[in-house]
Amino acid sequence: MKVIFILDYIGVFVFAMSGILTASNKKMDFFGGYIIAFVTALGGGTLRDLLLNIEIGWILHTEYIYIAIAGATFALLFKKAFKYFSRTLFIFDTIGISMFTILGVQKALSMELPVIVAIMLGVITATFGGVIRDILSTEIPLIFRKEIYATACIAGAILYVILHQFQVAESLNMILSGCLIIGIRTIAVVKKLRLPLLNGNI
Amino acid sequence: MKVIFILDYIGVFVFAMSGILTASNKKMDFFGGYIIAFVTALGGGTLRDLLLNIEIGWILHTEYIYIAIAGATFALLFKKAFKYFSRTLFIFDTIGISMFTILGVQKALSMELPVIVAIMLGVITATFGGVIRDILSTEIPLIFRKEIYATACIAGAILYVILHQFQVAESLNMILSGCLIIGIRTIAVVKKLRLPLLNGNI
Amino acid sequence: MKVIFILDYIGVFVFAMSGILTASNKKMDFFGGYIIAFVTALGGGTLRDLLLNIEIGWILHTEYIYIAIAGATFALLFKKAFKYFSRTLFIFDTIGISMFTILGVQKALSMELPVIVAIMLGVITATFGGVIRDILSTEIPLIFRKEIYATACIAGAILYVILHQFQVAESLNMILSGCLIIGIRTIAVVKKLRLPLLNGNI
Repeated sequence: MKVIFILDYIGVFVFAMSGILTASNKKMDFFGGYIIAFVTALGGGTLRDLLLNIEIGWILHTEYIYIAIAGATFALLFKKAFKYFSRTLFIFDTIGISMFTILGVQKALSMELPVIVAIMLGVITATFGGVIRDILSTEIPLIFRKEIYATACIAGAILYVILHQFQVAESLNMILSGCLIIGIRTIAVVKKLRLPLLNGNI
Repeated sequence: MKVIFILDYIGVFVFAMSGILTASNKKMDFFGGYIIAFVTALGGGTLRDLLLNIEIGWILHTEYIYIAIAGATFALLFKKAFKYFSRTLFIFDTIGISMFTILGVQKALSMELPVIVAIMLGVITATFGGVIRDILSTEIPLIFRKEIYATACIAGAILYVILHQFQVAESLNMILSGCLIIGIRTIAVVKKLRLPLLNGNI
Repeated sequence: MKVIFILDYIGVFVFAMSGILTASNKKMDFFGGYIIAFVTALGGGTLRDLLLNIEIGWILHTEYIYIAIAGATFALLFKKAFKYFSRTLFIFDTIGISMFTILGVQKALSMELPVIVAIMLGVITATFGGVIRDILSTEIPLIFRKEIYATACIAGAILYVILHQFQVAESLNMILSGCLIIGIRTIAVVKKLRLPLLNGNI
């Protein structure tokens, strides 16, 4: 369980960074930025916990709130050190979705929910925070843009579930599935891969 | 209870079609389209179940997930057969809201909640999926546009509650209330009826 | 407990007014306006109750629904009497957020949740209804614009928690914290104070 918490903490920290940097690009004010950071970091997990009808993570464990605040503050303080803003945002975002996908899948599997539900909850945990961030920033959600985003989460979630079925050790499974998500998304962005658009010839 | 499930399945199927066709019009990518389909089909019911504090439908009954995927895939495959895109979207949307309104009202009444709550939950079940779909597609939600939309749901929900009070058989009640919703909306669109705008002289 | 209910009623009434007047400015139709009113008035409290996993206020106490409808209707009827529309909206909004902040904090404290959670739930109760209203109206949420908005709620929530710690009588605490919120926001708007923007030199 310990590793799960640490990964969750890292995910919250980097998603809070991603949130406040987005808000900063949008010239929002101070508290507006912290709210976007909070929503980005904890929105996906909050929805997952609501859907699972379990107590909300950050209400039960208030350290999540402080970690989100810390992540946002850290990003603000060292903002100037990030030379390539959009690239930095991309890296944080990618690490974040890989952590959150795996955590969502794990939580659902630990409650012995069906595999398809576990995959969906993984994807929801990973993507929903970013979707709310984008909606609040009046951006078209990143998830629907040309980058391969949800696809990476779905692939990672499916790999995790398969390796789990074959009883691969949890920590190894996390590393493999996490790397798959980060790998797919990075390759997709570097190579400018796209999924076929829906109005094309499918 | 059986009929309820079948109607719910139909509603999910057609709302998934409506969702992915909207995404297709927006030139979203493959998985983005499926996510919009899923949210459109299951978002309203998910909110209803959250508000009622009962287990989420598609977590308990995973067939909902597969039906949403099937509906979206069906719409993609036979897209070219739909000559009049916007009309097709309209028909699916209208059938969907009529199913979902009635199901939301029924669920609330079966939990012996007050009539006003049942009406509200019917309208929420019917309209919320579409509202999220439109927000995610950065459209002004259809519900607030000139077509008579929520109005039809409210009328159908009220009729259902009244007939329920007079102990009309459930299946007959469903047909009558469902037809009222479909009828009001169809007439409104065909005749280009509008509700008075709020800045006019009311 | 009685005073809490009355304050909550006032908050719902004025937020419903604020909601329908926003919808009216956007030239939405009749029912669209009522839905925006309902969401604005009850959205924040609904999210708070979902997060706390307690029964939703307006499902348990249906008078909330009628108060929201009454507030919206009142605003429509006397719309012409409001000479300065935007100022009226501002006043209602400010009273509303001050009521809701305090109620959110109180509810969390009464459940013996940590102080930081109480503050966050106060801010969520106060601001979330307005955020949904703005998103549905395709406006950039007011909370992220230049006015000091969330800041006032956070200050009021913190004051309430501190005075609560010093066992100041609840009613006095409510008045003081409520006035702080209204005061900060009014001064900020009158003096055109702003928080530093995030892309400036912090």
